[in-house]
Amino acid sequence: MSPVVLLTDFGVQDHYVGVVKGVILSIHPQVQIIDLSHAIPPYTVVAAQFLLGQAIPYFPTGTVYVVIVDPGVGGPRRPIALKAQSGICVGPDNGVFTPVFPQLQTVVQLNNPKYWRTPQPSPTFHGRDIFAPVAAHLSSGVALAQLGESIEPQTLVNCHPKPVVCTANSWRGHIQYIDHFGNLISTIPASAVSNHRMQQITWGEVTIPWGSYYGDVSCGDLVALVGSHGYVEIACHQGNAARVLGAKIGDVVNVIGEKVVT
Amino acid sequence: MSPVVLLTDFGVQDHYVGVVKGVILSIHPQVQIIDLSHAIPPYTVVAAQFLLGQAIPYFPTGTVYVVIVDPGVGGPRRPIALKAQSGICVGPDNGVFTPVFPQLQTVVQLNNPKYWRTPQPSPTFHGRDIFAPVAAHLSSGVALAQLGESIEPQTLVNCHPKPVVCTANSWRGHIQYIDHFGNLISTIPASAVSNHRMQQITWGEVTIPWGSYYGDVSCGDLVALVGSHGYVEIACHQGNAARVLGAKIGDVVNVIGEKVVT
Amino acid sequence: MSPVVLLTDFGVQDHYVGVVKGVILSIHPQVQIIDLSHAIPPYTVVAAQFLLGQAIPYFPTGTVYVVIVDPGVGGPRRPIALKAQSGICVGPDNGVFTPVFPQLQTVVQLNNPKYWRTPQPSPTFHGRDIFAPVAAHLSSGVALAQLGESIEPQTLVNCHPKPVVCTANSWRGHIQYIDHFGNLISTIPASAVSNHRMQQITWGEVTIPWGSYYGDVSCGDLVALVGSHGYVEIACHQGNAARVLGAKIGDVVNVIGEKVVT
Repeated sequence: MSPVVLLTDFGVQDHYVGVVKGVILSIHPQVQIIDLSHAIPPYTVVAAQFLLGQAIPYFPTGTVYVVIVDPGVGGPRRPIALKAQSGICVGPDNGVFTPVFPQLQTVVQLNNPKYWRTPQPSPTFHGRDIFAPVAAHLSSGVALAQLGESIEPQTLVNCHPKPVVCTANSWRGHIQYIDHFGNLISTIPASAVSNHRMQQITWGEVTIPWGSYYGDVSCGDLVALVGSHGYVEIACHQGNAARVLGAKIGDVVNVIGEKVVT
Repeated sequence: MSPVVLLTDFGVQDHYVGVVKGVILSIHPQVQIIDLSHAIPPYTVVAAQFLLGQAIPYFPTGTVYVVIVDPGVGGPRRPIALKAQSGICVGPDNGVFTPVFPQLQTVVQLNNPKYWRTPQPSPTFHGRDIFAPVAAHLSSGVALAQLGESIEPQTLVNCHPKPVVCTANSWRGHIQYIDHFGNLISTIPASAVSNHRMQQITWGEVTIPWGSYYGDVSCGDLVALVGSHGYVEIACHQGNAARVLGAKIGDVVNVIGEKVVT
Repeated sequence: MSPVVLLTDFGVQDHYVGVVKGVILSIHPQVQIIDLSHAIPPYTVVAAQFLLGQAIPYFPTGTVYVVIVDPGVGGPRRPIALKAQSGICVGPDNGVFTPVFPQLQTVVQLNNPKYWRTPQPSPTFHGRDIFAPVAAHLSSGVALAQLGESIEPQTLVNCHPKPVVCTANSWRGHIQYIDHFGNLISTIPASAVSNHRMQQITWGEVTIPWGSYYGDVSCGDLVALVGSHGYVEIACHQGNAARVLGAKIGDVVNVIGEKVVT
């Protein structure tokens, strides 16, 4: 039995997340429901796709992911379900599923009202009336093809981050996410720097030393390293790098290394 | 097997919610526990009863609802359990269960210590020592009548919102809830306006156009619509209506429509 | 089947908690995962051990506790698992498990990579790569001895709160925790004051009356009592004592009672 994972911008103050779970349990009473996050900044598709991409590799194959970050709800954007190697995704066609595009198998538009909660879904809450019931049916074994018409994958909306600019021993990327600890996660992947002896990061006038874990520097000092996300990241040992540097999503990062001669 | 749904003002910082879950699992290890919200503003019974009323229709029949928003804990207010058509409610007799009063079947006062965690419950934490164990027993099949003496339903404390004032084509209500997105939910039900061609809302000097979904107006603009709660609501497309209008719970809303001639 | 309880300083904004759950479910699909708290102030071992100590008595015997408050992750501090009478603990050897030391049975260092997610764990995320998989294996029945070499309990790092200073009828302690309601929890245990007729607390120039529950004083007034944690605590009826007094963790509290003559 596959778990259902929820990723939304609903926050946890209101009843929205609870209601989505109630609808799922009404259809599939024994399913396990896991909260990935409900704290995506409202309407921020780029943050949702980053978190989803980070989380998928750690969940069981076959997991059903419901992503409800949906600024265009009720408008012309399509409600969709995607089958990929790692699992099934349910949500709006607005780029939130970009991380699974490389491993896509089939996509459908959710236009079969038989699997909705009601034939007249609320124009402001497809999460409750379309995505939740569809996810419950998928997790209990209903086939994707039952849920609606097939879509050509190349018509899907995507949300790729900006490319990294490289020279022989340096990389210029940007901050794509800032986590709860204030760690700055860049767009520069670990693979880019893996054959290099790493030296430092420059952030405007500031030079930040390279390390291999947070404790490599004194408390309150900045350090750059390959973080657990698989990207170059800037942290502050037992502090908050975002606050220390006044950083925000989209800011530029320059990384300097040295080629390893083998 | 019925799930147990929790609604409290405990927040999620402390161990209170975890402890309530631990007590439930100690009695009924396989039960599914769902968080409705733990972010009710402290001691705010009116917000708790709104959220409960919103959520119940979406959960399976037979669900056990535990509501711990309990400013009078340890004082003379009665701990109670109610059986209604949709499920069972456990908590204080202070109005939090008002939404289920129309479908009430039986009510008991929880005065049988056999189903408490301890015969000397903490005067400050009935949630842990009375409500959690009672809910666990109810979800595992114990009958309501075992838990204490029957209460006359008309003696229950209620918490109804203020009535809506109507003329032929206009309604005057107030804001009963403000959600995480800053959407303002009024007390005017969808049914009141359903036979009218809707025109606008007035908020002091501000006139707000009517729409059918958030995207009906430009980003940053205000719109009034029937929201997914079944009430007239004021939203700001990809923004925060509460901040834009400086609104708070209890503020007055005037809605103007036009009778549909059929 | 034992539940797995999570206590971290990850917050719930990011994917970290979700990823930990994904890893656990990938190994033990049917296990029940309970959030104790993810809002421990970052790197604050003393708050983590307080919450853990408060929660353990209310969970089923055999529960697996995963505590990830780990400022020294990737450095020399040891990853460990402890078996105690009440359950099993998994996390860093930095004092977070101090509350179970009195009931300790066996301790191992987690140095058998067979039970890790990968033989090369991320130096910044042992929670995902060591603690989560180890907890999943423990909850599905793997013996502690399989996970690594035995450790001498007296070598464990501890984190005991400062001792309470007593005279015949007075006690001087400090604030060890401030909860979501602003209640101030002191280090003075209920047992210290149980044979006394309690009179008052002094907080600098302020005298606070003793009560037996919050409602013993008017709304907005301060009251001292034995709270549900089993410690002397200062509350403000339907208000926030921490804000009223400008209190912080570590502040001194003086309690004055009177010996009960029997």
